[in-house]
Amino acid sequence: MSLTVQKFGGTSLADPEKIHRAARRAIRAKLEGHRVVLVVSAMGHTTDELLTLARAVCADPPKRELDMLLTTGEQISIALMAMAIDAAGHEAISLTAGQLGLLTDSAHTRARIQRISRERLDRELAEGKIVIVAGFQGIDAGGEITTLGRGASDTTAAALAAVLGADVCEIYTDVDGVYTADPRVVPQARKIDEISYDVMLEMAAAGAVVMHSRAIEFAKKFNVPIHVRSSLTDAKGTMIMSETQSMEAVAVQGVTLKEDLAFVSLTAVPNTPGVAARIFAEVAKNHIVVDDIVQNIYDGGKFANLGFSTNAADAREARAVCERLAKSLGIGKVEVDEGVSKLSAIGVGMRTHTGIAATMFEALAHAAINIENISTSEIVISCIIRREDGPKALRFIHDAFKLGDTDNRPGSS
Amino acid sequence: MSLTVQKFGGTSLADPEKIHRAARRAIRAKLEGHRVVLVVSAMGHTTDELLTLARAVCADPPKRELDMLLTTGEQISIALMAMAIDAAGHEAISLTAGQLGLLTDSAHTRARIQRISRERLDRELAEGKIVIVAGFQGIDAGGEITTLGRGASDTTAAALAAVLGADVCEIYTDVDGVYTADPRVVPQARKIDEISYDVMLEMAAAGAVVMHSRAIEFAKKFNVPIHVRSSLTDAKGTMIMSETQSMEAVAVQGVTLKEDLAFVSLTAVPNTPGVAARIFAEVAKNHIVVDDIVQNIYDGGKFANLGFSTNAADAREARAVCERLAKSLGIGKVEVDEGVSKLSAIGVGMRTHTGIAATMFEALAHAAINIENISTSEIVISCIIRREDGPKALRFIHDAFKLGDTDNRPGSS
Repeated sequence: MSLTVQKFGGTSLADPEKIHRAARRAIRAKLEGHRVVLVVSAMGHTTDELLTLARAVCADPPKRELDMLLTTGEQISIALMAMAIDAAGHEAISLTAGQLGLLTDSAHTRARIQRISRERLDRELAEGKIVIVAGFQGIDAGGEITTLGRGASDTTAAALAAVLGADVCEIYTDVDGVYTADPRVVPQARKIDEISYDVMLEMAAAGAVVMHSRAIEFAKKFNVPIHVRSSLTDAKGTMIMSETQSMEAVAVQGVTLKEDLAFVSLTAVPNTPGVAARIFAEVAKNHIVVDDIVQNIYDGGKFANLGFSTNAADAREARAVCERLAKSLGIGKVEVDEGVSKLSAIGVGMRTHTGIAATMFEALAHAAINIENISTSEIVISCIIRREDGPKALRFIHDAFKLGDTDNRPGSS
Repeated sequence: MSLTVQKFGGTSLADPEKIHRAARRAIRAKLEGHRVVLVVSAMGHTTDELLTLARAVCADPPKRELDMLLTTGEQISIALMAMAIDAAGHEAISLTAGQLGLLTDSAHTRARIQRISRERLDRELAEGKIVIVAGFQGIDAGGEITTLGRGASDTTAAALAAVLGADVCEIYTDVDGVYTADPRVVPQARKIDEISYDVMLEMAAAGAVVMHSRAIEFAKKFNVPIHVRSSLTDAKGTMIMSETQSMEAVAVQGVTLKEDLAFVSLTAVPNTPGVAARIFAEVAKNHIVVDDIVQNIYDGGKFANLGFSTNAADAREARAVCERLAKSLGIGKVEVDEGVSKLSAIGVGMRTHTGIAATMFEALAHAAINIENISTSEIVISCIIRREDGPKALRFIHDAFKLGDTDNRPGSS
């Protein structure tokens, strides 16, 4: 008997009417003959409201108690969802992470899943119930309540789908799929029908906020297809799945813009073994998030210019750390530019298509947009540009890669 | 080392400032050298708000899911309380019923405590932490989340105090103690300094809403003194404790009014063995709450008039049940009066003092208030009267028993 995992986010559960709508979807899947596991987030803005309350009580709340507090949001949702399904005359049962046996490590507010017990799930499913699981939360070996990080209900859903060998993991959200670019910035953006795990991971890392990266990693590892779709319509959304040949026929599948970045440049860095390691160890120790790293050598390899992008919020701290490093390591100069964005083009077809980088650079030249730094990987090309150029740049490269065309895009509609 | 259990109700935790005030009290007890266990209710009107949400989703929510929903209120409170204590620079840890090991039976929404594990409590207390326990909730042997009934955080506190052999269980609330009568109805009412478990139990049953009855039963069984006091001041409140000689010197310690009752009268009931049993079994089966029962025989014991008080909300159902019974048992007539209240006088001194009933009846006669039914027990005299006469009756008997006098009341101030 097939099994479907359905996950509903906070906006799809914001009020009793929306909870009933989500319940009807689960019931329909049940009536179509599937076993159904629902994963739910906290209603609407509940998590933010709880965080506000926590900060009103304590400037820097202990992480264990934050997890104790925030997990109530999902517990409210599972109970209400079970009531909604009961009201419609069907059997359901809600389960907290503790009741289910979703074990994590003990890293409060950013725990990682270690093991999911199937026993309770299998028992409830065998009794014909729709099983409703609280997303985002876990329990450690000592019975402490943990959370998996903001947005991690997706991860709960993908992990459950993996453990249960689900046929599909449906992510219901307020958009109708993954787009070739953010439609709020690029009106010509199209919904993508099928996308590979790797491209989706790169798009998420490059600024597309459709799904939590760890959820995609889980799905990839266990080869569970993820269907990202709207909670408001029955239209097909985007399937995130293993790579197919038709995907490779397309050079670029999507373009993204990651805003609110800063770029840190270290010039005249002595190019001796261990220097880069020293620098990034120190940066990591100070909890500064590093996005991309670029390095060029010069002067016959004696020196290097080393740069990395980081969150704009971390810019001040990054400058302080790097200036300390510059003194102790004999680095020439530290410059921090807080006004940049990262523009990326992503697609598995890049491996086999040529001239992709040239097309991107030409499009930006045509728009009179200066490129400050460039980094590439197997399936991504990224440019650091001025923040104010971002939206225009995104529209120009979306156009240059013909992502708005429906004619020559297999795997898109 | 002495141990104090402090319980804070929802009104004492309604906002961050009030949470901090409660936290300061716990910290003060800690600094005075006590080990401290805090029991907290849900903030302000949280439980009512969650119930409203539940009813918006499902007219008759499954009880298991109601418990799943409502227990989030106390979980929010324990987390915020731990944060408040942390913000003040002291160590605390919050525990759900599951983490603590507060085991109940499986009767959702009205579970009874079966066992409380000391292990986790002792461990955290030994580390010098203030331990914060979620009131109202429990966990059954299968790991299901249960609740102990509305207002049962008092019960959690009393049960913990009993298990831990606490020196005192302090109940912080928005009144400053137990009064000789409801001060909103009787302005002359005085705070009682000391009251016995039995008198407090009878007062609670007769309409005083200061504390949950089961909490008093726990405290009595394990002889834990309960101190009911205001969360706003440092004034001494009321000690609920074992009977002392000075208590017996007072005939009546308090008077109460239980409103919103109905009185069901069955006339010409065949007085044969098993008839009363048949009647009350049927009433219980229909979940009708029976308050007091009064029966008189007549006609040489051939017939009886049988009456009982019940909640006004149950009146219609009680009538239907009794009319069916009247047919099958050959009972003469069923009358239901929905407009009555119960007036009670309570005190351990009644056992040794005489003329208490006469004083009460004379006071009512003097006020021209008619008595419809009378029932008495060892330490209670109750009269059923017209609801509109209630407040006046309460003032008259409060006066008649000189409860407003400070001169001749040992154990009161």
